[in-house]
Amino acid sequence: MKSDRTIGVIQDGRQHQVDIGGAADILAVLQHSRFTIAAPCGGSGTCGKCLVRVAAGDPGQPSTMEQRLLSSGRLSAGMRFACRLVPADGMLIEIPRWHAETLNKASLISVPLQNDPPLIKRALRLAPPSIDDQTPDLERVLRTSGCAKQRLSVHALRTLAQDLRRGGFAVTALIENNADDCDCLVAIECGDTAATLWGAAVDIGTTTVAAYLVNLVSARAVDVFSEINRQAEFGADVVTRISYSQKHGVTAVRQVIVAQINAMLAKLAQRNGLAVSDIYLAAVAGNTTMLHFFTGLDPAAIGVSPFIPVATRALSLAAADLDVAINPHGVVATLPGISGYVGADVVAAIVASRMRQRTEISLLIDIGTNGEIVLGNVDWLAACSTAAGPAFEGAQIRFGVGGVDGAVNSFSFDPEGSRADAQNGGQVSLTTINSTPVSGICGSGMLDIAAVLVQTGAVDKTGRLLPRDRLPRSVPPAIRERCTEFESSPAFLVADSELTRDGEPVYLTEHDVRELQLAKAAIAAGIDTLLTDAGVEAGEVAAVYLAGGFGSYMNAASALAVGLIPHRLGGRIEVLGNAAGIGTVMSITSRTVSRQCRGIARNVRYIELSSSASFQNAYIEHMGFGEL
Amino acid sequence: MKSDRTIGVIQDGRQHQVDIGGAADILAVLQHSRFTIAAPCGGSGTCGKCLVRVAAGDPGQPSTMEQRLLSSGRLSAGMRFACRLVPADGMLIEIPRWHAETLNKASLISVPLQNDPPLIKRALRLAPPSIDDQTPDLERVLRTSGCAKQRLSVHALRTLAQDLRRGGFAVTALIENNADDCDCLVAIECGDTAATLWGAAVDIGTTTVAAYLVNLVSARAVDVFSEINRQAEFGADVVTRISYSQKHGVTAVRQVIVAQINAMLAKLAQRNGLAVSDIYLAAVAGNTTMLHFFTGLDPAAIGVSPFIPVATRALSLAAADLDVAINPHGVVATLPGISGYVGADVVAAIVASRMRQRTEISLLIDIGTNGEIVLGNVDWLAACSTAAGPAFEGAQIRFGVGGVDGAVNSFSFDPEGSRADAQNGGQVSLTTINSTPVSGICGSGMLDIAAVLVQTGAVDKTGRLLPRDRLPRSVPPAIRERCTEFESSPAFLVADSELTRDGEPVYLTEHDVRELQLAKAAIAAGIDTLLTDAGVEAGEVAAVYLAGGFGSYMNAASALAVGLIPHRLGGRIEVLGNAAGIGTVMSITSRTVSRQCRGIARNVRYIELSSSASFQNAYIEHMGFGEL
Repeated sequence: MKSDRTIGVIQDGRQHQVDIGGAADILAVLQHSRFTIAAPCGGSGTCGKCLVRVAAGDPGQPSTMEQRLLSSGRLSAGMRFACRLVPADGMLIEIPRWHAETLNKASLISVPLQNDPPLIKRALRLAPPSIDDQTPDLERVLRTSGCAKQRLSVHALRTLAQDLRRGGFAVTALIENNADDCDCLVAIECGDTAATLWGAAVDIGTTTVAAYLVNLVSARAVDVFSEINRQAEFGADVVTRISYSQKHGVTAVRQVIVAQINAMLAKLAQRNGLAVSDIYLAAVAGNTTMLHFFTGLDPAAIGVSPFIPVATRALSLAAADLDVAINPHGVVATLPGISGYVGADVVAAIVASRMRQRTEISLLIDIGTNGEIVLGNVDWLAACSTAAGPAFEGAQIRFGVGGVDGAVNSFSFDPEGSRADAQNGGQVSLTTINSTPVSGICGSGMLDIAAVLVQTGAVDKTGRLLPRDRLPRSVPPAIRERCTEFESSPAFLVADSELTRDGEPVYLTEHDVRELQLAKAAIAAGIDTLLTDAGVEAGEVAAVYLAGGFGSYMNAASALAVGLIPHRLGGRIEVLGNAAGIGTVMSITSRTVSRQCRGIARNVRYIELSSSASFQNAYIEHMGFGEL
Repeated sequence: MKSDRTIGVIQDGRQHQVDIGGAADILAVLQHSRFTIAAPCGGSGTCGKCLVRVAAGDPGQPSTMEQRLLSSGRLSAGMRFACRLVPADGMLIEIPRWHAETLNKASLISVPLQNDPPLIKRALRLAPPSIDDQTPDLERVLRTSGCAKQRLSVHALRTLAQDLRRGGFAVTALIENNADDCDCLVAIECGDTAATLWGAAVDIGTTTVAAYLVNLVSARAVDVFSEINRQAEFGADVVTRISYSQKHGVTAVRQVIVAQINAMLAKLAQRNGLAVSDIYLAAVAGNTTMLHFFTGLDPAAIGVSPFIPVATRALSLAAADLDVAINPHGVVATLPGISGYVGADVVAAIVASRMRQRTEISLLIDIGTNGEIVLGNVDWLAACSTAAGPAFEGAQIRFGVGGVDGAVNSFSFDPEGSRADAQNGGQVSLTTINSTPVSGICGSGMLDIAAVLVQTGAVDKTGRLLPRDRLPRSVPPAIRERCTEFESSPAFLVADSELTRDGEPVYLTEHDVRELQLAKAAIAAGIDTLLTDAGVEAGEVAAVYLAGGFGSYMNAASALAVGLIPHRLGGRIEVLGNAAGIGTVMSITSRTVSRQCRGIARNVRYIELSSSASFQNAYIEHMGFGEL
């Protein structure tokens, strides 16, 4: 809806003029105009994450929730929840920098890539037709290219005659040799373009989207780029986003993620001196819900028991059908998944871990917004999923943030410390992403803090963060003095106002510790259930691989300390990084790997935890912070 | 271009108001507004077929060509060539009825049809999902339908979840079992729709388009409908149309034929109580150029030596990609052709003749706008093409018309006649299509007239139509008195003014006989070349099949009399009717036949006559009207 009323929006120092349209709140205005703004609760006014500053205009009286969650300093500076702010003509809104910040944490692939890509090019010099060789154009190309099949688009067929003649019958064939080892002609280009054949590997995480640019001729990943998933505006976790899509349509969500991927690929192409049309193949992984949104499949039935996806098999679709802006002849290949909650990203991670190639048993723990666990070896694989992740991505955590600039990403306590500190009973230290002032606490930081609190006794075995006056004597003074209150409940001071970006102190609250407790118990119980189900003792597990947005960044010692990974699995933990992204890149350069993915997806035994009594028991057992 | 200037157009008694736009002549105005009007010469002002009457407004001075080709009566009645008539605001133009008349000569299929269609439906009752059976929707459908593969459209995948749940997991699967005997899921419909599965078989002749409606469940052709190919407005023969498409684009021609087929299918569906969406499969045959236009492939290289088509293989394309308005999941399957001038219509005719199933050698002569000839048996087949047809469709013949209402379609001379006639030296008689007043001469009528002239000696062995004063004495008086002059050259009076629609006499001219002479020599020489090339004696040919628009309607005795079919092949001639249409229907109800078509297309040896010395010799030999 076009209206005469507009607001100004400042983001990254630039001001934009934006139509209010029929939007009832500023969050809706910003989302409609595709500004990136976090809104984990989906705009229900409860999470307080969609903070903006009213730079001009009347911010109005703060709501009860705003009064409860925002300091008086912030309130008087004009900070409000975007989802509760009524838009008025001429208003000027500033989006704080942290909303748009991307986390370029994904790193380039170091593993050697196989070079038997599912898509190849062959430069051809066709014999020109003559009265003695009246072979039709298409047959001529097929004959010379060695393809037995073709699936040229109608458009390609329509330009074929001219394409051949314009280049004097020198053309390049784009050939797919993916299926049943039979070469299939996909497209024709004039002249010799065989040196230009690029692919993209995209991993759509619930929180982060990573895109890799891959040279399919040399089988090398040359660049990577990642961004916060813009679907964040529809909610932090898959269930919230499914609800959103049921109200507003799957298309609304699909368009956001497709537009984001198109922009990311355009950026990757541009900064590497390519055109997006040089990209012919995009392999896309992600959890099952993310792939549903990306392809436009309806994820509604994934959201409720019995959690049924529309499709988990690998789909090979025309890029144009998905509105993916790569070469017009391009193909988008989604990787196969296993179930509604063990997706293609897990299959890609399994590939990256190579656990499927080994006789020893490995355990793969992939914690992003959800936590998926895989156990097995060359002969068998079993997997399960736990809804454990959102806490580790900052959702439901009072000062929680994703892996953004200024997030506390590590925290440690040294009982000795420097001499001065020793007198004070040890020293705490923290790091933040990009070493900038503290903007909040991300998953790995929270895990470290919790580990310190458990190890020093500030959190007891039942998971209670003790009030200062009930702390055991053994708690060192440096910890003790940080045990305070926030909003009348026990809280641990992580960073005082001098260290933070906005001059407000940052705490880990009693409630935050409970959230972490639930999350870590779910993952530990998932691991136990898989082991029990397979009859495997912890001692038989040769390697524990950590993967995923949170899994890769957490401190393994902290994970063991809080019991996220049971103690008996310590001593063989290996971090894989963005295994889903790595596996996706591996699949795009190799049809063997691509076939492997399909084999894995078919053969993993999925264990549904929601109906498993053994999981329920293990969950309760792992709830405490004692050693198991 | 929208202009303020309009003309009125009367067709079939109804008046329409039409924009002149930027059109330079009335033909362009009429073609732009999709009126059906014959223009075999493509609007170059030479054929005189695009006649219209200026009912109001100034027709202007007649051109030299109009004065030459139109009687003074016609000129003063306001008849003019549409292509030479300058449009003026307020003009009223009447299109004579014959332009739009369709020839519903195609008849329903009497041959038994095999029932193993390439497309089937299966009604499915899926087990609803449960926590113990979390199979994704797509896998659930594939499992129950017995399909190993799927090619659901993105749209179908997007609605799949709802489709299954809306019908309580009772759905109908649309399944293709065309290729390598592996069932492939194509679409899903709610509920049990298995009883509704229709196909269309379309034969795009250069002159006539025939469409058959086929029940794919019972394998029965239930209706047929044919119309003059609306591309006639771009020229009578393929070469003229190719020239037109090079000037105006292939799309312009494609849109006309696709719109016509859509209208024909809509009419067939409507009069049989169906929706067009009940049609899931359209098999389309036609000569190679017609199939190029239909699919939008560029036929330019077919028009010049070495006559190279873009593709002749069978193509299976999404109906939507071709703008064919059948079921959105529908497929359009073009039949495979053999070369630039031996098309899919010939392959279909071979199938209909069943010559490929027999050990005895057969000869197939398919004369439509072109003349194609096939020789062979179960072990081998050879084919050639002669540019012989247009004359038989009325092109380049002074009073020639297609098979329209009032066309003289048979002509005979009885030397005895009734008593009164015997005194006058015999009796001539003629028939017209639908027994209406004479509108012109169509191919079969012309052949009969020529046969009478040759047999009575009015045309000598060199093909000269003799002036009355040089006729041999043996020429019977009833013929002699009709040998007269038209435009200062010898001509034969076919129908005097009392018998004709417009009160002007109709002649066969000396020049017309020459045209027929060239055409019949080409076909006879083609037959001889095939026989010689294969080392087959005429006596070894067990059957001669006649097919095609003209082939089916000509009198075999006349064809033998003028030497169109060499005499030594007499006595075993069989008329197949619209063999191309029949074969296309056969292919749509049977994947075996469909496979047979592909086998035939691959294995027919094509003999290029344009570079054959043996053909040149035979052509000269067959030029005369003596027995060979």
